[in-house]
Amino acid sequence: MSVLRKVVYLQRKYCLIPPRSRILIAFSGGVDSVVLYTALKELSHFFNLKEIALAHLNHKLREDADRDEEFCRQFARKVGVKIFTSSVDTRAFARKEGLSLEEAGRRLRYEFFHDILKKEGYDLIATGHHLNDLVETIFLWLIRGSGLEGITGFEPKEGKVIRPLFLVKKEEISRFAVERRLDWVEDVSNYSFEFVRNKIRHRIMPVVKEINPSVEDTLLAFRDILTEENRFMDAVSEELLKRIKDEDGSIDCKLLRNEHTALQRRVIKRWIGIREFRKIEQIRRLLFKGGRVNIGGGREVISKRGKLYLKS
Amino acid sequence: MSVLRKVVYLQRKYCLIPPRSRILIAFSGGVDSVVLYTALKELSHFFNLKEIALAHLNHKLREDADRDEEFCRQFARKVGVKIFTSSVDTRAFARKEGLSLEEAGRRLRYEFFHDILKKEGYDLIATGHHLNDLVETIFLWLIRGSGLEGITGFEPKEGKVIRPLFLVKKEEISRFAVERRLDWVEDVSNYSFEFVRNKIRHRIMPVVKEINPSVEDTLLAFRDILTEENRFMDAVSEELLKRIKDEDGSIDCKLLRNEHTALQRRVIKRWIGIREFRKIEQIRRLLFKGGRVNIGGGREVISKRGKLYLKS
Repeated sequence: MSVLRKVVYLQRKYCLIPPRSRILIAFSGGVDSVVLYTALKELSHFFNLKEIALAHLNHKLREDADRDEEFCRQFARKVGVKIFTSSVDTRAFARKEGLSLEEAGRRLRYEFFHDILKKEGYDLIATGHHLNDLVETIFLWLIRGSGLEGITGFEPKEGKVIRPLFLVKKEEISRFAVERRLDWVEDVSNYSFEFVRNKIRHRIMPVVKEINPSVEDTLLAFRDILTEENRFMDAVSEELLKRIKDEDGSIDCKLLRNEHTALQRRVIKRWIGIREFRKIEQIRRLLFKGGRVNIGGGREVISKRGKLYLKS
Repeated sequence: MSVLRKVVYLQRKYCLIPPRSRILIAFSGGVDSVVLYTALKELSHFFNLKEIALAHLNHKLREDADRDEEFCRQFARKVGVKIFTSSVDTRAFARKEGLSLEEAGRRLRYEFFHDILKKEGYDLIATGHHLNDLVETIFLWLIRGSGLEGITGFEPKEGKVIRPLFLVKKEEISRFAVERRLDWVEDVSNYSFEFVRNKIRHRIMPVVKEINPSVEDTLLAFRDILTEENRFMDAVSEELLKRIKDEDGSIDCKLLRNEHTALQRRVIKRWIGIREFRKIEQIRRLLFKGGRVNIGGGREVISKRGKLYLKS
């Protein structure tokens, strides 16, 4: 399927973009964001868009960051759309907040986009994330560890952020860009500070593709299954939690003990909002005996007279 | 934790080996199987074992296959246990059955083990699969595609096959072998025909370990969560299928339509015993409209008068 058809298919399935929307594109100048702009522009009638604008944040991390910013300005001028730009000192922010450069850059970027959204009245932020990004994210979370939430990667729509290229493969993006004779700057999306992601992209994924050339489609189906099962488990455990939680916020051990292990875990997680598997298992053991578990942040779970209490 | 402690822990958790068992070890002569034998021997009192014997199948695939077989015979003589050996022409079998060498070798091996089990009255086949094998298997299935079943890899116990080293890392096995000054033959477990697994082992896993040095433990926890959720979903869908299946074997569309997407998928899968996601989705769409889906093997699912029928 072509890029445009996949974008249309995604819209029909998830209703990403309501009619008359004003869209702000997270624009790095790289091929993904240039194709994203071009696809939305060509489909602006289909989407009944009111406006498309670009937003570019200069992270001041690489030598050619200023060149990239200049490219983005010229691109906007050429196609005749508004562009919002700004510069940040990502390194200083990372140091101050004790974050990795990757995480610092991400936060600054989204803060910048959301600020424009609010001030200028745009409805949605569109990012160039595509199917290969999704696959990399799934591997990243699998390797680093995360519950079931992480393993499904990102969504086509999360809050104000939409990802119209969600179903599109990188090779389809490249082909689209070449066919349309588009201009872009190289390597902007490969922020050199994304060490871990680059390991996955350049050292793991090529071998994965040797083993299964259509791994993107394989993982998309797998993700779809997991996402739905996750939603179902969420719904069941939410309902169960309501039933076994007392007015004082405590949990009835006996009622929870009679439920399936999988549900015990989900309910505990939901009840106190922690994700660490080892802690959840420690608390689960409290269902069968007395005792207490320190869950950090000065909070603990106490088993007493057949009930679990959360104390801070 | 040491090798022996992990074997004991696994036994306490899963009751792998009943008292007075006669165990047949799948013995390649490689370090995993030598450590497996040594660990079970040292723990034979704890397990209250009646007998340990070895079984070695010569696949005749590599030049040093005969050398390996001879090593295994000598090993058995040295430690004073019975050994069963046999040779097969794996290549010819693979050709005849249209199988990959990997799959042909696996089938011949397990047939050989099960034959001895039956003829000689052993209770269980113990294999040297360890935690790194599990992690590789999880990656293998994730990449190749499988439902939720595949992604959890193998179990500590499946039928007559037990895996006492399930929780043990490769590096712990190597250390144990060196500490005990054990002898083994190199590279036997790396059957050269396991191309795909070798890609994962030698090209993907080293990068994965750079990203997360304790990835084995991370995936073990992840697997534990998935396994339990899978069991829960199985139980719920089994119960639901019973409720919505008529005496003639048909399914009530309306009843299934009202259930969660995740349950619809599980029930359809269970009802007709197929695993292919695309087919399951095609059948699921029949719940909402008329029509038929060919599911191969001369069978089809037909939607008629508010019911799904399976016809062959």
